[in-house]
Amino acid sequence: MSLIPTKVFFFYFHPTMYHLGFLLLLGISSIVSAHENFDPHLFPRPLIVQYPDSLKLELKESDEELLLQCTSWRFAAETNNLNPWKTIPSECAGYVKDYVTGRGYLVDLERVSKEAIAYARSVQLVGDGKDAWIFDIDETLLSNLPYYADHGYGLEVFDGREFDKWVEKAMAPVIESSLKLYEEVLELGFKVFLLTGRSERHRSVTIENLRDAGFQNWDKLILRNLGDNGKSATLYKSERRSEMVNEGYRILGNSGDQWSDLLGSSTSNRSFKLPNPMYYIP
Amino acid sequence: MSLIPTKVFFFYFHPTMYHLGFLLLLGISSIVSAHENFDPHLFPRPLIVQYPDSLKLELKESDEELLLQCTSWRFAAETNNLNPWKTIPSECAGYVKDYVTGRGYLVDLERVSKEAIAYARSVQLVGDGKDAWIFDIDETLLSNLPYYADHGYGLEVFDGREFDKWVEKAMAPVIESSLKLYEEVLELGFKVFLLTGRSERHRSVTIENLRDAGFQNWDKLILRNLGDNGKSATLYKSERRSEMVNEGYRILGNSGDQWSDLLGSSTSNRSFKLPNPMYYIP
Repeated sequence: MSLIPTKVFFFYFHPTMYHLGFLLLLGISSIVSAHENFDPHLFPRPLIVQYPDSLKLELKESDEELLLQCTSWRFAAETNNLNPWKTIPSECAGYVKDYVTGRGYLVDLERVSKEAIAYARSVQLVGDGKDAWIFDIDETLLSNLPYYADHGYGLEVFDGREFDKWVEKAMAPVIESSLKLYEEVLELGFKVFLLTGRSERHRSVTIENLRDAGFQNWDKLILRNLGDNGKSATLYKSERRSEMVNEGYRILGNSGDQWSDLLGSSTSNRSFKLPNPMYYIP
Repeated sequence: MSLIPTKVFFFYFHPTMYHLGFLLLLGISSIVSAHENFDPHLFPRPLIVQYPDSLKLELKESDEELLLQCTSWRFAAETNNLNPWKTIPSECAGYVKDYVTGRGYLVDLERVSKEAIAYARSVQLVGDGKDAWIFDIDETLLSNLPYYADHGYGLEVFDGREFDKWVEKAMAPVIESSLKLYEEVLELGFKVFLLTGRSERHRSVTIENLRDAGFQNWDKLILRNLGDNGKSATLYKSERRSEMVNEGYRILGNSGDQWSDLLGSSTSNRSFKLPNPMYYIP
């Protein structure tokens, strides 16, 4: 049996095979690491392999260990402790899929929104139109889960051209809990700035997608222009925030799924980190 | 039956009752919130209540829901998304205890250390004695778990006088993974600064505890003095870091279990957030 088709299984196992997939990943991670240059685009997918239920029970103990390791990895990712990473760990493919397609992700998103709303309500606004809240877009207001479902939920190296095709469809669904926060901060009297790593040439599709998803009345939509090419997100977003501050805005809140949305200079009084275990942007 | 003794059960249920405890907490959380002024010091502990095993199985589904909710709470705490909090949620008492006394906490601590070591090795040091790494002490180099084991792992409101008695024993055990990082950064040529919220009057017991735990050769141990009274940890630590920067130090790494160790001004090039679901210091 060739090693390569065996590996394709890791990327796209069937939902009913879920827990078993975890264990198999553990056992043959050495094979995975021996094929670092593997290109998942070259093979047909999904490739589904069926195993008897008895095997599942025998492997339960290591299943728990993998759950522990992948939860720990997710914590390290969310607290910005990990050194820059390009793909999720292959052994955590099933874990990440389960999390983002299950209730875990929704519960986490709702909690961030709830805490941000409580903070927003507690802030004493000056009311001169200079109280501002910044939102990132992807994985903050809009979800690209349909795209990542086709790309192993972060298991594949990011492909900008493929992602652009998805963005141009303007079909990214709303993140409901973020829409609730968004509407609340507008209602409270904040100016809302949308600050995204998307390119200026995607302005119209982005507006279309945002409106379809229920977002409206933002003050400014800021996208990357040609001069921002090659800049890290942290630098690009810091520069744009500095401009806001120079224009007299007080950045009271900032919501983003990446630490590069939140760190750097001219940071907000309080930042809210939305969950995203699928990718990392420096 | 009085409500109060029932409540004491939440704080100190028996390990074998662990999962069941979770569920019971859920069901009577309304009672808990009705007694916000309850003082756990007034009652004898632990109070152990036994239940039949059959009940445990019936409640399995909501057990998973509670696990999800408490994991979500922990994520929100670790990513600094929560509004300031004084105690852990009572329904997550068992969850937090299980985490900090089990493998989860150790795995998370080891991962932070491993990532920090990889970063430290990747840094190009100038080598003029001005390359610096800052460590917090409590829950970063030394563990106060024995103290928190006696205080519900964060379920009791922090009692400074009680905690001081513990500090004065100089018995806090080492966090092994942090000692490994500590020794590595010294070996690489970093200057090490210990920056702690502990009081100047605890200098000698702190030195004794640190030495017993295996730490040595730090450059400076900085404790709160009288002038720092009333300052938030974020401000106090920012001021001390600013002094280092003014003295020409380049703060390349910073390890702490609180975001107030890591945020503010004169922040380090990279920060490492150690896990701590037991308490929050602004």
